[in-house]
Amino acid sequence: MAQIVHKYTLLILLSVLIMHSLFTIVYSKNFDEKMPCKRFSLYYHDILFNGTNLANATSATAVNRTQLGDHKHGMLVVFDDPMTKQNNLLTPPVARAQGFYFYDSKDEWNAWFAFTLIFNSTEHKGTLNIMGADLMGEETRDLSVVGGTGDFFMTRGIATLLTDGQPNAFYFRVNMDIKLYECY
Amino acid sequence: MAQIVHKYTLLILLSVLIMHSLFTIVYSKNFDEKMPCKRFSLYYHDILFNGTNLANATSATAVNRTQLGDHKHGMLVVFDDPMTKQNNLLTPPVARAQGFYFYDSKDEWNAWFAFTLIFNSTEHKGTLNIMGADLMGEETRDLSVVGGTGDFFMTRGIATLLTDGQPNAFYFRVNMDIKLYECY
Amino acid sequence: MAQIVHKYTLLILLSVLIMHSLFTIVYSKNFDEKMPCKRFSLYYHDILFNGTNLANATSATAVNRTQLGDHKHGMLVVFDDPMTKQNNLLTPPVARAQGFYFYDSKDEWNAWFAFTLIFNSTEHKGTLNIMGADLMGEETRDLSVVGGTGDFFMTRGIATLLTDGQPNAFYFRVNMDIKLYECY
Repeated sequence: MAQIVHKYTLLILLSVLIMHSLFTIVYSKNFDEKMPCKRFSLYYHDILFNGTNLANATSATAVNRTQLGDHKHGMLVVFDDPMTKQNNLLTPPVARAQGFYFYDSKDEWNAWFAFTLIFNSTEHKGTLNIMGADLMGEETRDLSVVGGTGDFFMTRGIATLLTDGQPNAFYFRVNMDIKLYECY
Repeated sequence: MAQIVHKYTLLILLSVLIMHSLFTIVYSKNFDEKMPCKRFSLYYHDILFNGTNLANATSATAVNRTQLGDHKHGMLVVFDDPMTKQNNLLTPPVARAQGFYFYDSKDEWNAWFAFTLIFNSTEHKGTLNIMGADLMGEETRDLSVVGGTGDFFMTRGIATLLTDGQPNAFYFRVNMDIKLYECY
Repeated sequence: MAQIVHKYTLLILLSVLIMHSLFTIVYSKNFDEKMPCKRFSLYYHDILFNGTNLANATSATAVNRTQLGDHKHGMLVVFDDPMTKQNNLLTPPVARAQGFYFYDSKDEWNAWFAFTLIFNSTEHKGTLNIMGADLMGEETRDLSVVGGTGDFFMTRGIATLLTDGQPNAFYFRVNMDIKLYECY
């Protein structure tokens, strides 16, 4: 009898361990920094209106800079920019980025972004809402994906920005590596 | 003996299955799109200041439109608007919506919103923080409820916007169907 | 035999109960309002540029107030402000707060904030993204911490604001009690 109880105990322990590991896998799967549940790399093309490029421009300065320092402090840009899979403006956009950024620093090239990525293709329908600081002095900058709708219902994650080039004074291109950790 | 072990195995399996279903119920309850843990339908009344309606106006243009296209690109409105339960401005407000929106598109009627719903009644005390794109070409548009405080401590969810009417050029009314999926 | 099965049942029940309590502890630990997983109290120093204080100023008015009421409705300030541990501007900053606020109300002193706290010290590296209403008539105001990066990967929480003083017309100081409830 003692032996049987011993066996029970072992089996129960085993069951607890299995459950615990299952629980840990399910729970932590969504939050392991290297294991996003969804990920895509997109290119953001911001072409600022300069008075003559109306056909190509997708953003414009809505608020002019203040007199605080020499880094465009206070300049606010409203955009509706295309997002592509390759770093080529001529490839078909797979999403739009709609929102704004402004420069916020007296001494450095720092900006602050809040925007929505809008997907409306056969592949994805839905939006991702993103906000955070763009510390341009860093090679990569992490923003927060704070919510989502449609195919991205209730998602959260990180958007890592990497400047990909500045073809001219009114066009800059940024790689956005979108990593989602909560997928439903 | 073999028969007993077989029985153990069955029971253990059963236990794992029960736990798994319990886990699934608890975990997914908060995230089934059709089963919000809290829901309310409110009407947002935005009455834009036009220079003569000071008594009624609850919002005003803080930043004028840019020259990019014909859809008010860059125009930014700051508001402190009443929210009511019925679509009638004369009914008592149950919350305030404080924040801003701006038009962001060259070719379409798209806006972008970020605001806080402030509840201060016997029924609810607390705030909901909301952001996202308002694609006015769509019948309904989903924004993200990205956080909450007070009675809505740490909540998240979706706010579905539906234009309810535009009584005049300076007054538009939007139904907001607020669905919360994380309630604590 | 019946006795053995009875014993099984008891053990299985015990195992289910243990799992359930484990689950409850793990799951609810992150969301008890009085038990944040991380907490810090910091002071925000906002020194507004007035045309002559360029050396000290860390923020400036980017958008002027509208004519709606007498509470600076529409005035928008962009800031890159120091955050210190003590309520003394001369102590070394432990973080920067980069973002904006604007006044939104016709009849009251209400503002709306969205900003990023940027930590870059040996103690913490990472960012916290915060948004919400600052109802200045209340003694304390709760904003939402909607996301984080780096050391604060995927965090959420509450930032409680308490005005700590206004040394002069262009300098106000706010205590921010940051309480995080999701730590990974």
